[in-house]
Amino acid sequence: MPRHIHDVAQIAHVELLTPKPQESLDFFCNLLGMQITSREGQSVYLRGYEDFYHHSLKLTEAAQPGLGHVGWRTPCAEALEERVPVIQASGLGLGWLEESVGHGRAYQFRSPDGHSMELFWEVDYFQCPAAQVSKLMNRPQARPTNGVPVRRLDHVNLMCKDVTENKKFFEDALTFKTRENIIMDDGTEMGAWLSVSILAHEVALMKDMTGHEGRFHHVAFWYGVPQHLADAAEILVEDGIFIEAGPGKHGITQAAFMYVYEPGGNRVELFGDAGYLILDPDWKTVTWRECDLETGVVVYGSKLPDSFFVYGTPVVELSPEAASEAAEQMPAPVAS
Amino acid sequence: MPRHIHDVAQIAHVELLTPKPQESLDFFCNLLGMQITSREGQSVYLRGYEDFYHHSLKLTEAAQPGLGHVGWRTPCAEALEERVPVIQASGLGLGWLEESVGHGRAYQFRSPDGHSMELFWEVDYFQCPAAQVSKLMNRPQARPTNGVPVRRLDHVNLMCKDVTENKKFFEDALTFKTRENIIMDDGTEMGAWLSVSILAHEVALMKDMTGHEGRFHHVAFWYGVPQHLADAAEILVEDGIFIEAGPGKHGITQAAFMYVYEPGGNRVELFGDAGYLILDPDWKTVTWRECDLETGVVVYGSKLPDSFFVYGTPVVELSPEAASEAAEQMPAPVAS
Amino acid sequence: MPRHIHDVAQIAHVELLTPKPQESLDFFCNLLGMQITSREGQSVYLRGYEDFYHHSLKLTEAAQPGLGHVGWRTPCAEALEERVPVIQASGLGLGWLEESVGHGRAYQFRSPDGHSMELFWEVDYFQCPAAQVSKLMNRPQARPTNGVPVRRLDHVNLMCKDVTENKKFFEDALTFKTRENIIMDDGTEMGAWLSVSILAHEVALMKDMTGHEGRFHHVAFWYGVPQHLADAAEILVEDGIFIEAGPGKHGITQAAFMYVYEPGGNRVELFGDAGYLILDPDWKTVTWRECDLETGVVVYGSKLPDSFFVYGTPVVELSPEAASEAAEQMPAPVAS
Amino acid sequence: MPRHIHDVAQIAHVELLTPKPQESLDFFCNLLGMQITSREGQSVYLRGYEDFYHHSLKLTEAAQPGLGHVGWRTPCAEALEERVPVIQASGLGLGWLEESVGHGRAYQFRSPDGHSMELFWEVDYFQCPAAQVSKLMNRPQARPTNGVPVRRLDHVNLMCKDVTENKKFFEDALTFKTRENIIMDDGTEMGAWLSVSILAHEVALMKDMTGHEGRFHHVAFWYGVPQHLADAAEILVEDGIFIEAGPGKHGITQAAFMYVYEPGGNRVELFGDAGYLILDPDWKTVTWRECDLETGVVVYGSKLPDSFFVYGTPVVELSPEAASEAAEQMPAPVAS
Repeated sequence: MPRHIHDVAQIAHVELLTPKPQESLDFFCNLLGMQITSREGQSVYLRGYEDFYHHSLKLTEAAQPGLGHVGWRTPCAEALEERVPVIQASGLGLGWLEESVGHGRAYQFRSPDGHSMELFWEVDYFQCPAAQVSKLMNRPQARPTNGVPVRRLDHVNLMCKDVTENKKFFEDALTFKTRENIIMDDGTEMGAWLSVSILAHEVALMKDMTGHEGRFHHVAFWYGVPQHLADAAEILVEDGIFIEAGPGKHGITQAAFMYVYEPGGNRVELFGDAGYLILDPDWKTVTWRECDLETGVVVYGSKLPDSFFVYGTPVVELSPEAASEAAEQMPAPVAS
Repeated sequence: MPRHIHDVAQIAHVELLTPKPQESLDFFCNLLGMQITSREGQSVYLRGYEDFYHHSLKLTEAAQPGLGHVGWRTPCAEALEERVPVIQASGLGLGWLEESVGHGRAYQFRSPDGHSMELFWEVDYFQCPAAQVSKLMNRPQARPTNGVPVRRLDHVNLMCKDVTENKKFFEDALTFKTRENIIMDDGTEMGAWLSVSILAHEVALMKDMTGHEGRFHHVAFWYGVPQHLADAAEILVEDGIFIEAGPGKHGITQAAFMYVYEPGGNRVELFGDAGYLILDPDWKTVTWRECDLETGVVVYGSKLPDSFFVYGTPVVELSPEAASEAAEQMPAPVAS
Repeated sequence: MPRHIHDVAQIAHVELLTPKPQESLDFFCNLLGMQITSREGQSVYLRGYEDFYHHSLKLTEAAQPGLGHVGWRTPCAEALEERVPVIQASGLGLGWLEESVGHGRAYQFRSPDGHSMELFWEVDYFQCPAAQVSKLMNRPQARPTNGVPVRRLDHVNLMCKDVTENKKFFEDALTFKTRENIIMDDGTEMGAWLSVSILAHEVALMKDMTGHEGRFHHVAFWYGVPQHLADAAEILVEDGIFIEAGPGKHGITQAAFMYVYEPGGNRVELFGDAGYLILDPDWKTVTWRECDLETGVVVYGSKLPDSFFVYGTPVVELSPEAASEAAEQMPAPVAS
Repeated sequence: MPRHIHDVAQIAHVELLTPKPQESLDFFCNLLGMQITSREGQSVYLRGYEDFYHHSLKLTEAAQPGLGHVGWRTPCAEALEERVPVIQASGLGLGWLEESVGHGRAYQFRSPDGHSMELFWEVDYFQCPAAQVSKLMNRPQARPTNGVPVRRLDHVNLMCKDVTENKKFFEDALTFKTRENIIMDDGTEMGAWLSVSILAHEVALMKDMTGHEGRFHHVAFWYGVPQHLADAAEILVEDGIFIEAGPGKHGITQAAFMYVYEPGGNRVELFGDAGYLILDPDWKTVTWRECDLETGVVVYGSKLPDSFFVYGTPVVELSPEAASEAAEQMPAPVAS
């Protein structure tokens, strides 16, 4: 086997657009225990207590909810230089952004479906105020006492009109490997989970059953402890936050999940365990077929409602015909 | 930053020597829920239900407990070829082993302290009997119903006469990175935790306070769920298995730990959570100094007894003078 | 407030009828870790490892699944003598049974809906074989190593044509107190949870939406640790056991629940935490109205499917009209 | 068996004395998530989010830490009337207190060792502010978002010069039953755990190895979820709160424990699971002998240090002779 080199190291931050900036901010700070690092223009920069960089979440006021962009960090300066011409060659490159809050020069581009992304190497590390310094030297900040605090950014899930095309872009232009996918009986690829590390995914791609392009499914923050999903649910329910599904366990990626809508309308996943790790360097993509989906989508716990397969941000209106068509295509054993 | 290439991908298996082979086997099978894949000569091959290869543990009958060897897998065939001359140049190479149970040709060598190791690329995958096939397509076998089953091999901890020398060998000859270490006030490196992935360690090196060489501290199997340490403790206590320490949480690596002695005398760690992940590709070694050790060694839960710092396999007798000297050097705030 | 005296102390055992006795037995032994104490005729007697008496579950072969009977223990001999004439006066008494496996003479009777029950004082304690004696002197047996072992019997849920009538019988003839109930907008009592201790319920009564009488909803065994529901789910799913709902958390009783059908067809609840305790001796019944039901039925986690409100044992066929009528009456925000 | 009637229903509140009132208050509010209901003179009244009454904890400024008093509630008005003459006959009665914050007239008395206590029937219920009302109708307040919030008061542990004498007073004058105790080889009763419900204890009595009288060992607040002990430990360690022992599991009462010193110096237990329940109405006291103590004191997890057996409030100085004598008497396999 020839050597595979990853030129992306990790997901470094996600920007969410929100029409309710204060309510969204309260949600992330008061309930999920995130910390504000700075504000600039219509944006607030936040991080979980085990996020090492300046921010892992940028909240930006906007007319509609949705994804602002995803920030990927390379493993070294050299990898950034090597990636840019490849992205340019794909025709999806946008150009260099010289100055940003929290990181160095970044190359901007779009996914085939149109999601905004950027790639960079240099980052600003979080500078911890003295009062919050942890006694754990490998932790950038003491665990907060507000809410049920998430630890760090984990992954994003992007809705795609064409999963396969986007998957190939992540593989070919960004050096990801496809760890798991869903292939329907008619050959359609319904979803794909890709990573650049032993994690099962830093990005998931999921077919947009409404036929739209470039929408956002969710961003996931990590707890790593299943009990914390129950703890978070207790305070989210009381606060009127909508829990769409979970706690439950996916077969795909083996993730302990809970999906909620933050007040601005974006779906947020709270990730409750370690899933499983892909230590085998020669891992072959695990393909789930229609007949496997019942266990694949949810092993146990909360079923996924229909909204999981059609709701994304920005929100789109579905004509009755489109809704009915979408329903027909959805993984049947799952959404029932 | 220049690109760093890891030529080791993962820890693939560990061989333990045991003077009580049947009792050791019962421990791993009945209490830790491991499965036997084959027997050959004085050895039995075992795996946890999320170990994908033929075996992750080889138990071999011997007069004394201790480490047989550690098996490392490379990320590709090319990496194996590249590593061998480097190991040979270090003077620690032993030569190729053409045939092995469960994997292809392997290059054998020793650590500077004398621990036996091998490096290989080709592996045999576990062939799951029909009755044990999991509905989770990313799981090589259904979760067993015997004992409190461990999921997979996680790491080894090797006692060393000279931590620094061994650390350099793992860094230079085997491409590991040092994620955390302990430096005493007199400059002695008491321990080092190294990895080739986003895990905080696949190998730990710990100063042998008795002054001996080449001894084995522990092998760790992974649960990933803190509650499982309590569950395992309940059945281990009833069975008379010695629990040396835990459940508790280390500051270093942030691991939820429990240490027990299997009936043959080897220390086994049961690892109860995900620790933390090193996603930052530019991670700088976190150094714990003497004044940090109280939190570093144990954040909360069970303290570590003196035995943790002197007991290893094979077992050595300590003269009263040696014991007293060892006690003097041990991290004081810890062992008290 | 005048003093209230409970003449029932606890639920001591439940008898289930099963058309698949061997499969049912395998379920309770291999997956739920229960132990067989004796066999007699078409019955097998079982207990969890923290059940102190001869048995907490009697499995009896029968043509149809359903409840055999519920055994209640009084707090003293005197209480048994005092209760019998009261039950007799209600017209539901059946008479004394002089000899039984595992307990002394018992007074047999029926609930208004027709569920078989018995009341007794004298019990046989479990005699633990030497090999299973626990080091915990307050535990009647060491924790087993088979399956994910339940600790003890917790409660039963009985389907009733008329919840109120049955509730009054439990209150008046059996000295229970009603801790919580559901009153619909039309005044119908949909469910009631009653106890004789600080537990929120030893018996639940639930309206049978099919209009039948005397059916059985479920028996609950207790884990007390939320993680164990996930652990049990993992092995149940692989074994093909049907998980109807859960893990999730009820608002009513605050129970962490999971509902499964044992192979004979009876619903079994696995109870994952301590719920809440009613320490207030002057507790007023908490009434949930229709508008409260969304949180009342499930706070978070798995929703309850329609089957939860109509499936019971013995199983009855629903005509399409009856099914549609039942659906109309079901707590709407819940079953959707 | 004659009927046993309990004239005490529950522990309703505990008053702690603290020389650092603000620091103590910060500890209970910011870290343990308790809520202030009122302030009066040098006292602040607090409760956990599942405490139904006006308060479960009264913090009073004083020169030395220690127990103010324990408040017990009777199951009915009649029981209060019946108990008072019995207490008076014991010679330990002090008289009626007509007015109190949070409850009705109370009869004050002392334990044989001198601990202040009171018995009452009438209570003021917590009136929940609109913003904190829970959607769980059986929960007096929504789960708070500050700290790792305790749910309710659970029990107290009182140090006694003579355990047996105090145990008899609780049994005879207050109708408790002794659920478990420790008898040393020389016949000394080292500890006793008593209750008036299916809980294993609402009060524990523990021999004061220093020979002093009337001291306070700890008050316990309840989480009921083992993970919450780890969560609390994370924020307590960072805040510099001293964790004396735990998380771990006692054999006696099967409690998941963690012991910390609040800033005023009083020991507080955080109780992490449901322990076991005494459902058998004919329970015989479980006696642990010296040879059983290793498992009895701690089944697994953190050992108990010597301080656990001699530290209480108010704090006393031990002469070297007394310390050495105390050490000799302490349960040896435990404190080592």
